Amino acid sequence: MSEAGFGGSDAARSAGELPHARSLMLPGPLALRLGGELPEVRVCFETYGELNAAGDNAVYVCHALSGDSHVARHDENDAPGWWDIAVGPGKALDTDRFFVICANVLGGCRGTTGPWSSNPATGRPYGGDFPRITIADMVEVQKRLLDELGVGRLHAVVGGSMGGMMALSWAVLHPERVGSAILLATTHCLSSQALSFDIVGRNAIFKDPHYNNGQYYDQEQRPDDGLAIARMIGHVTYLSDRTMSRKFDPDREHPRDVAYAYEKEFSVGSYLAYQGGRFVERFDANSYVSLSLAMDQFNLGRDYGSLEAALARVTCPVLVVSFRTDWLFPPAHSRRMVDALLAQGKRVSALEVDSDCGHDAFLLENDLHVYGPLMAGFLKRGPVCAVERPQSAKNGAQAGSTGRDAGPTNVRSIFFQSRLDLARIEELIPTGASVLDLGCGAGHLLGRLRCRGSGALLGLELNPQDIVECVGQGLCVVQRDLDRGLGVFADGQFDVVVLSQTLQAMRRPDRVLTEMLRVGKTGIVSFPNFAHAPAVRQLAENGTSPVTEGLPFPWWSSPSIRFFSIKDFEALCAELGLRVLSRIAIDSATGEQPGEDYNTRADMAICVLGGPAKG
Amino acid sequence: MSEAGFGGSDAARSAGELPHARSLMLPGPLALRLGGELPEVRVCFETYGELNAAGDNAVYVCHALSGDSHVARHDENDAPGWWDIAVGPGKALDTDRFFVICANVLGGCRGTTGPWSSNPATGRPYGGDFPRITIADMVEVQKRLLDELGVGRLHAVVGGSMGGMMALSWAVLHPERVGSAILLATTHCLSSQALSFDIVGRNAIFKDPHYNNGQYYDQEQRPDDGLAIARMIGHVTYLSDRTMSRKFDPDREHPRDVAYAYEKEFSVGSYLAYQGGRFVERFDANSYVSLSLAMDQFNLGRDYGSLEAALARVTCPVLVVSFRTDWLFPPAHSRRMVDALLAQGKRVSALEVDSDCGHDAFLLENDLHVYGPLMAGFLKRGPVCAVERPQSAKNGAQAGSTGRDAGPTNVRSIFFQSRLDLARIEELIPTGASVLDLGCGAGHLLGRLRCRGSGALLGLELNPQDIVECVGQGLCVVQRDLDRGLGVFADGQFDVVVLSQTLQAMRRPDRVLTEMLRVGKTGIVSFPNFAHAPAVRQLAENGTSPVTEGLPFPWWSSPSIRFFSIKDFEALCAELGLRVLSRIAIDSATGEQPGEDYNTRADMAICVLGGPAKG
Repeated sequence: MSEAGFGGSDAARSAGELPHARSLMLPGPLALRLGGELPEVRVCFETYGELNAAGDNAVYVCHALSGDSHVARHDENDAPGWWDIAVGPGKALDTDRFFVICANVLGGCRGTTGPWSSNPATGRPYGGDFPRITIADMVEVQKRLLDELGVGRLHAVVGGSMGGMMALSWAVLHPERVGSAILLATTHCLSSQALSFDIVGRNAIFKDPHYNNGQYYDQEQRPDDGLAIARMIGHVTYLSDRTMSRKFDPDREHPRDVAYAYEKEFSVGSYLAYQGGRFVERFDANSYVSLSLAMDQFNLGRDYGSLEAALARVTCPVLVVSFRTDWLFPPAHSRRMVDALLAQGKRVSALEVDSDCGHDAFLLENDLHVYGPLMAGFLKRGPVCAVERPQSAKNGAQAGSTGRDAGPTNVRSIFFQSRLDLARIEELIPTGASVLDLGCGAGHLLGRLRCRGSGALLGLELNPQDIVECVGQGLCVVQRDLDRGLGVFADGQFDVVVLSQTLQAMRRPDRVLTEMLRVGKTGIVSFPNFAHAPAVRQLAENGTSPVTEGLPFPWWSSPSIRFFSIKDFEALCAELGLRVLSRIAIDSATGEQPGEDYNTRADMAICVLGGPAKG
Repeated sequence: MSEAGFGGSDAARSAGELPHARSLMLPGPLALRLGGELPEVRVCFETYGELNAAGDNAVYVCHALSGDSHVARHDENDAPGWWDIAVGPGKALDTDRFFVICANVLGGCRGTTGPWSSNPATGRPYGGDFPRITIADMVEVQKRLLDELGVGRLHAVVGGSMGGMMALSWAVLHPERVGSAILLATTHCLSSQALSFDIVGRNAIFKDPHYNNGQYYDQEQRPDDGLAIARMIGHVTYLSDRTMSRKFDPDREHPRDVAYAYEKEFSVGSYLAYQGGRFVERFDANSYVSLSLAMDQFNLGRDYGSLEAALARVTCPVLVVSFRTDWLFPPAHSRRMVDALLAQGKRVSALEVDSDCGHDAFLLENDLHVYGPLMAGFLKRGPVCAVERPQSAKNGAQAGSTGRDAGPTNVRSIFFQSRLDLARIEELIPTGASVLDLGCGAGHLLGRLRCRGSGALLGLELNPQDIVECVGQGLCVVQRDLDRGLGVFADGQFDVVVLSQTLQAMRRPDRVLTEMLRVGKTGIVSFPNFAHAPAVRQLAENGTSPVTEGLPFPWWSSPSIRFFSIKDFEALCAELGLRVLSRIAIDSATGEQPGEDYNTRADMAICVLGGPAKG
């Protein structure tokens, strides 16, 4: 197999070959966060699309450790960009619509000032004397570039991995300049494990006999072996165990023939040899040290006292995307950031993409069908009232009576009365109330509330497609398993918490109810009534588990795992110390609300709950 | 903090300091698997306890990559051993009872012939000329050592990590010499990810300017930096992400002061510097290359055509222990081995320890309370009939009527009739039948069947303590989530498959039933009857979800998530094409078996099922 078999997009060009890149010298010196300054800073950048007259369509893309300004190809003849899948006409970052800017970072080796640059004080490259830089310094350079370009407020800042650290820093350091932020496969602080891999890689560079304290530019040999070994370690951490198995297990003991002088005993060995060997042809060891140290020292919690204090500064909507098999920037870190934003009532949406591709997933096409539309929808900030107008209760009941195929709202609903249900719940929610919708689905209730005018709205949902749909409507939705609790929210954070037709599918209904009424001043719960006479009749007369219009699934495959009556529900509330403020019991076939005999005549109920009575 | 803060057990001694080790020269040359031979092989070993008169109490311990013969201290004044927690008087590998043997492996650098040894042909150390060795070669040396020591058949062979590869190879290569095998945190073939880390480590050694193709023993400097970097990579892979967080996050930016010349920017950096620096003081780079390559090339499936073909040779009981957070030798690899053994009807028990400690867990005390008793019980091969004799059905019913605290059998049972249930099921199973017990608990049914005489018996269970208990009784039990299916078993592999009081807690009862009757010629299922008149009465008369003696939990916290009557069950069987061969419907309060009106009068049922009628 040819070496090209390993080639990524970077294989097609080497340093210096960026014909569309421009470069400018920033005015004045740059004072650095950790002390010292750079007397002059040159920035190498590329732009795509046009800045509109209002100057409000700029999207800044921050690249990762080994990236550069060439985020996408400018035309058909241009070399591939590192994120061609996401940036271009009609793509998620639509260059027909947005003015996309990407610059090589400070400390890099692809045109922007870095250790390879000439130190004005000595006339020789900085090398090991290049000062210690931080992610904040990189962002400062980006901000000055925008000043030079006449871009005031960004429509969005977008970044993955180390680029995500910059995008997050933008939102914290310059909230007034950021309209929204997309954080992909990133973290507020590297794990000790991820840190370790960087440290070992740097040790390999430092111990390379040609490193010479970073003063190697005039040497015949550079610390290529050390840099190649650092890159090999990196490559292992960018892939998932599963990706590596798929790529290398089938021909495990049949290495490919590559030109680089590293161990090639196994197929994965020849891959690492190739990746390590190729990397030194386009990257600089000092830049690797400088950028990886900046990444390792990034620690928002330390800088502001706590992560919460740092994120308190954020004012824009934030989209956080993580990838299930990313073990370098694991989803748990994204959850930690999302939690800190949620706890402070910030506008945040979040999805953990069920990807096989590890950290690299955000650069690959494999899962683009999920995170591409998600980013596109988020950048669009969906039209406020494009969602279908709520139907009246009567229409809802009629739609319901046609069965489970009554419309998009019902497709994934397990109960045929869902339209009726939502209409009634909407009526119960005061205008202007802040609402948390647990299991919000595709956002039908939240969309209605938004059109009507409301306070803060947030949905929690598990289904990724529903989340993409919600975000496309401009709703804030976070992926979360309700059985894991609502610990992230403060007591009384919402006016209303809604749990619609979901309680019966939960492992621990008692815990969810308690939590709802902790984080919400009021709770609204709708559920099917298992003591509905036709259902009970089936059990009593036929001796079989009931299957009715309201309980349409057989006992052995139903999504419902809890069976209870309205009376049972109210008894549980009493046991939990929750107050049932009002109850709407409905016979959904007729739309009637039975009186005293509601527990046998209604097939569903909507209860408004209040927390424990104050002593 | 002092350097001792990082010290493991190996910190206390350096090469050569093994006062209790003996060494002997094996007779004759050793022909190697991959060609060539070693004209002479010396083995350095230690023994503990005494070989008994019958010669059947020997336990061979195989060490991991960086281990040696000093598995445990011989007395209070002796240096710590690498597995003191498991080997010694009264410990899991009880030296009062067993004759424990451990030798440095072929290729090692702690007394047994390796690259550091003098090549008789040249009179100089082998260095880079040391021939390529395999795990099988290491096992061959161990076998010849046993021949010299007069040990015929081993009571057991035990090993973790690379040692587990040897223990597994023992069982495959020399089944006649192995009474049982314990495989800890190991695999039949390294993952491509694990392989990668070894490859990068070897590249660091090969590229060290002092490596000199392995001919460095007479040099002033050795490839210490390369070896240290390889060891640093290893250390990251031995720990879990969570362990690293716990150890290093709290003082992330406060490195400890260590004497070694590697990056010490972060606390984890100083740890890696210490571990890397310390390692070169006691280990040899050539040995590291030789042993890691042997590990990387270990691939039982390749050697025998398939893993199944390799494991077909195993005749002894095997215990497979994996650790949840071990990402170097992940639990999935252990499952793969266990599956291959199960599919061939081999005697295997398996547990995935819910450990935080990563690959190192098998060397640490943290989870010893689980895997220690498990190994001890497995080595004891529990007395065949020590379990309580089954009580009569009548006694069982009486025991049941005292409620949920009736005895140990009932502690974790969710139904009060479990003794009655098991007694009836036992009666239904023909003597000599092979039985698979799904959700076998602490092995009460399997223990009874074993005492009675039976064919092959196997239990599947989730609860770790139950598994430890079963293994201690000499039963074969594998940890498995039944909702994941029985795909590993062949059609008709068992005479009888039992599912006792578990169906109602499963997500997909239909799938479990179908699978049971695929892998078993007959199925026996017991379950509570939801149409039992007192239960139905509660629903119909009170309008509440029933809570009865047979259904003791409230609707919102019950382990049961499926509610069905005997009629429902039989209808599902018909729908699945399964035949109900016989049905015992019982009113457990009286012990009576109702007639026609069983669906309302019985509170539980036991059904004997047959697979789909043949064409």
